[in-house]
Amino acid sequence: MKKITILGSTGSIGVSALNVIEKNPERFQVVALSAGENIKLLKKQIEKFHPKVVAIGSKDSAIRLCESLAAKNKTKVFYGKEGLKEIASYPSSDIVISSISGSAGLVPTLAAVEAGKDVALANKETMVMAGEIVTRRAIKNRVKIIPVDSEHSAIFQCLEGSKRENLRRIILTASGGPFLNFTKSQLKKVSLSQTLRHPKWKMGKKVTIDSASLMNKGLEVIEAKWLFNVDISAINVLIHPQSIVHSMVEFIDGAYLAQMGVPDMKIPIAYSLTYPERIVNNLKSLDFVKAKSLEFYKPDIRKFPCLDIAYKAGILGGTAPAVLNAADEIAVSAFMQKKIRFIDLPEIIEKVLNVHRVIYNPSLEDILQADLWARTETEKTIERMIS
Amino acid sequence: MKKITILGSTGSIGVSALNVIEKNPERFQVVALSAGENIKLLKKQIEKFHPKVVAIGSKDSAIRLCESLAAKNKTKVFYGKEGLKEIASYPSSDIVISSISGSAGLVPTLAAVEAGKDVALANKETMVMAGEIVTRRAIKNRVKIIPVDSEHSAIFQCLEGSKRENLRRIILTASGGPFLNFTKSQLKKVSLSQTLRHPKWKMGKKVTIDSASLMNKGLEVIEAKWLFNVDISAINVLIHPQSIVHSMVEFIDGAYLAQMGVPDMKIPIAYSLTYPERIVNNLKSLDFVKAKSLEFYKPDIRKFPCLDIAYKAGILGGTAPAVLNAADEIAVSAFMQKKIRFIDLPEIIEKVLNVHRVIYNPSLEDILQADLWARTETEKTIERMIS
Repeated sequence: MKKITILGSTGSIGVSALNVIEKNPERFQVVALSAGENIKLLKKQIEKFHPKVVAIGSKDSAIRLCESLAAKNKTKVFYGKEGLKEIASYPSSDIVISSISGSAGLVPTLAAVEAGKDVALANKETMVMAGEIVTRRAIKNRVKIIPVDSEHSAIFQCLEGSKRENLRRIILTASGGPFLNFTKSQLKKVSLSQTLRHPKWKMGKKVTIDSASLMNKGLEVIEAKWLFNVDISAINVLIHPQSIVHSMVEFIDGAYLAQMGVPDMKIPIAYSLTYPERIVNNLKSLDFVKAKSLEFYKPDIRKFPCLDIAYKAGILGGTAPAVLNAADEIAVSAFMQKKIRFIDLPEIIEKVLNVHRVIYNPSLEDILQADLWARTETEKTIERMIS
Repeated sequence: MKKITILGSTGSIGVSALNVIEKNPERFQVVALSAGENIKLLKKQIEKFHPKVVAIGSKDSAIRLCESLAAKNKTKVFYGKEGLKEIASYPSSDIVISSISGSAGLVPTLAAVEAGKDVALANKETMVMAGEIVTRRAIKNRVKIIPVDSEHSAIFQCLEGSKRENLRRIILTASGGPFLNFTKSQLKKVSLSQTLRHPKWKMGKKVTIDSASLMNKGLEVIEAKWLFNVDISAINVLIHPQSIVHSMVEFIDGAYLAQMGVPDMKIPIAYSLTYPERIVNNLKSLDFVKAKSLEFYKPDIRKFPCLDIAYKAGILGGTAPAVLNAADEIAVSAFMQKKIRFIDLPEIIEKVLNVHRVIYNPSLEDILQADLWARTETEKTIERMIS
């Protein structure tokens, strides 16, 4: 019986993970959950899965949650950043699903690694911001980091049973998002609701917007660098609108392995929990005949500059990726508030990145400082732009 | 330094294998070669690779070969079936590339297995005719059988690092051959030279004709059954005209792995010799953007009944696959002599299979008897048809 902690249990990945766990009660037991502010859903999850401990964002929310739970409920409730760390390092847990959205996932994920927990990593920001620190500490603590992102899970599966020196390059596939075939002038006018309509994947809002701008793929390139210990130059991106090939690897002999499947996060989530085993999944099977044709295109950097900016930040290294990520979080948030247009995203992010003085071999403190600096700088940049 | 024996060194696979070996002199050394009747090419190979021993088809050929070699040449020359066995079990060899075409490959391949040699298997007939015996003896002698066929090599690579209980099914891809989009009435009129023009792969004549009729894929289904220890019902065939996906596997969780590459046999040949390592290959890299679209179709059994007949023989088991194979060899030979039409192939083969009394759990003797019986029966069937 694998004992599971979920950081971010009320988000898209958290809910899917609980769905997988619920269908396999003989294999998995939920011991700890955390949520930001969604008291209602967390309450339901507590009543269904009976975790030993939970954490919620604020003291107020914790009080309201406790009041809403039945008197006989035995789940201990923590709150705030300290509560989250408590959950991430909860002693009896075997594996921590890190599925908090955004940079907030870094510190608790690192706490899980320090506590010697295996990590099923859905929070790409952990690797984007602090890939070097996290991988170093994971090795030191003999912790396995198993990717949950469909692309990284695909690569992880392709590399199973292969020696690393056999790898020549990684090809991350991207659906291309809702604006794949839009012209540059069409892109100027896209609305928030259009941006949130992803053609293939159901995901949270932030990552859906990042998918439309290809920033998501850029963050994934940086994540892949750390997860698979490869140079950025050996990571390529191909647009694959059908989202059937989730990613692929090329070996030194010219052979490729590709992982494929229906676009449903339950497959990589389950794999991250059962690896190296697999469990039967009752999802609709992939129909290659129906899919008919799998297509691949070069990404258009002129239309989607975010991918290029992310590559630059990845090559710069040091604190640059953390700044990239923070600037993107703030810019996307402004876009969600309809303060800026979709095409303003790359311009804003690039401006912030350009004025950042990169610190190399940064400490965690340096990274968190750079993250804070970038947030303020991005807000200022947005203000200047819209005023 | 890996010491290598090639059975069938003057054939298409043999020549490609020597090409791989020549480019990696620090890794591989040729110790033994065999050929049927191509004295001229075998002589060149002897002069280039200096094998310790060679075998050639007949005593006459052996004499002529010896006469043509320089006096200082130290290569020992054997001949005939006994000579071939000698080569197959040559003591100092580490691995035997079994690339004789057709049923003639079975006995020497089995000799290699009995001598404890690892086998790089390009002769599918070995598994089609005697899969059960060969796999049993390979296990007993702790011999690795590594497939060379691009499809089986693909599956072998997809299954590396995975436990067998995770496998749900195998999908063999087929280019569809030169007549993929022909109508049934067009198929009635196809010529031998049309049949020999394979759109994707450069191969020997027999296998090229089998590719056009889909019998090749049927034989591969039976081969896959034994190589990967799966039920015939868990092996599917998909037409994939681009020949980029060489085959794929589906796991129980709905995840697929596919192996891909340019259609060049040097990749699977090299892999079979270096497994589990890979070596750098200077082939042109696969360009997914140029390939543009990967398509998949259901095979049309009405147009290509050979695939269906092979499935039936595979399900019957026992001596049925050996009979299928022998009938196909004789029928294809008659087609090459322009005695019959392309569309007569399935009719003839099915007739022979229908009158065969299957022996279950056959001995090697039973299999060789069934093979002989089928040859005579097929010749009779052809005579009746054309007279």
